[in-house]
Amino acid sequence: MSNFRIAAVQMNSQEDKDKNLATAERLIDEAARMGANMVGLPEMFNIIGVPNYMENGVEEIPGRTSEMLARKAKEHGMYIHGGSIPEYVAEENKVGNTTLVYAPDGALIAKYRKIHLFDIDVKNQVSIKESDVFVRGGEIVNFETEYGNMGLTICYDIRFPELYRALTLNGAKVIFHPSAFTLYTGKDHWETLIRARAIENQVYMVSPAQFGSHGNGRRCFGSTMIVDPWGTVLARAPERECVVVADVDTEAHEKVRAQLPCLQHRRPDVYQK
Amino acid sequence: MSNFRIAAVQMNSQEDKDKNLATAERLIDEAARMGANMVGLPEMFNIIGVPNYMENGVEEIPGRTSEMLARKAKEHGMYIHGGSIPEYVAEENKVGNTTLVYAPDGALIAKYRKIHLFDIDVKNQVSIKESDVFVRGGEIVNFETEYGNMGLTICYDIRFPELYRALTLNGAKVIFHPSAFTLYTGKDHWETLIRARAIENQVYMVSPAQFGSHGNGRRCFGSTMIVDPWGTVLARAPERECVVVADVDTEAHEKVRAQLPCLQHRRPDVYQK
Repeated sequence: MSNFRIAAVQMNSQEDKDKNLATAERLIDEAARMGANMVGLPEMFNIIGVPNYMENGVEEIPGRTSEMLARKAKEHGMYIHGGSIPEYVAEENKVGNTTLVYAPDGALIAKYRKIHLFDIDVKNQVSIKESDVFVRGGEIVNFETEYGNMGLTICYDIRFPELYRALTLNGAKVIFHPSAFTLYTGKDHWETLIRARAIENQVYMVSPAQFGSHGNGRRCFGSTMIVDPWGTVLARAPERECVVVADVDTEAHEKVRAQLPCLQHRRPDVYQK
Repeated sequence: MSNFRIAAVQMNSQEDKDKNLATAERLIDEAARMGANMVGLPEMFNIIGVPNYMENGVEEIPGRTSEMLARKAKEHGMYIHGGSIPEYVAEENKVGNTTLVYAPDGALIAKYRKIHLFDIDVKNQVSIKESDVFVRGGEIVNFETEYGNMGLTICYDIRFPELYRALTLNGAKVIFHPSAFTLYTGKDHWETLIRARAIENQVYMVSPAQFGSHGNGRRCFGSTMIVDPWGTVLARAPERECVVVADVDTEAHEKVRAQLPCLQHRRPDVYQK
């Protein structure tokens, strides 16, 4: 893995897809100007908060949003991690919460559907049942880049250390975690869980986030983060639309893994008893 | 599980076992005065930092330290979690880093040997190789109390989410994590990892710690903690010998697990692919 610059985009997407896509394009351009070799967008960056994604928002792949991502990747010669979008899944006639990753030549190199769906009911605070709307993903997805192997997760997946461990054991050095994390849970869980995943797996975590309020009354925590394999928060977004960047330092990464080789100290023989 | 009060003891143990045991007895008495139904001691509370535990410190069980713990448990009618002690393991002629738990009647109800050994080499900061000295534990240990099921871990184990998940799936509502966490790693990892284990498993975490300097030049992070299943730090020790307490609230615990049922959202079918 060689050194490179990574950018994470923070947005407050709404129900107007035209506007969201224009904002995303502008922020991707901004990431390119900041010298990023790779940029990540937040969960549901192209549309969020609509009452019914099947009626409003869902897209096939290729489609309007994926074509924009491919075009931008090629235009800037950079990797683009497309947060997630509502994908039409014909087999189940349902919606996938789906990440697409494009290479600098505009080729689609990875696709991931959110594995863990967020069903929560905290009285008077937040009530969300994603499983009513979305297909459950069933595949753990790593992908190769010229900068090394990376892994894909989305938002609520952060509560499941099993997934991050699997991605790490598959070779990931960087794990993406685009989110629309709720304000209520985010205040107590966001930073702690992201930093813990970075520390325990000795990986870079990239968590581009939605902030502010959305059409369905959902309020998001923002605080887009890039965290290094020691758990240090290299970049954190303030409460506004913006791009944050950080440099991935390969040598420092290898040093952390050599000095504290916890990944070699796992005891799968014991866990499986 | 019914409500109860839990205490965590912070110590700065040294090479003088007489003194360490007297301090531990005094702090157990203090925990009893504070109304604790259960008290946890730190890792290697009875002796730490000696050049060779086989020559100085190692004990058979039953032995001097275990007999003190049993006697104190009976005297106060409380559960005592004996941090850890260097146990003579005859089969391997080596030392176990071993936790003993005593019931209010003085009976030994659980025994755990540290599964993950800490081998670290950070230049000019810290160099420790536990595997030279200690036996690797090979058993995941849960135990039953009148307050519900609990789980046992020690210090470096915190870096391995697999162990905490296994204890949780075995029924643990409270997980002990006695430690002598190094100052250098503690500043960046201690609170984050403990809170993450509490949040992702929705368990109480009890982490009684060593603080200050020890005979072998090791410096510890202190910051003994009790964390609730939402990840809130209920109690945190300042940089001195002391006892902190917190109340385990069963109803609140069940509410957290009902509102955010992430333990039911695991996807073992996907992880095992």
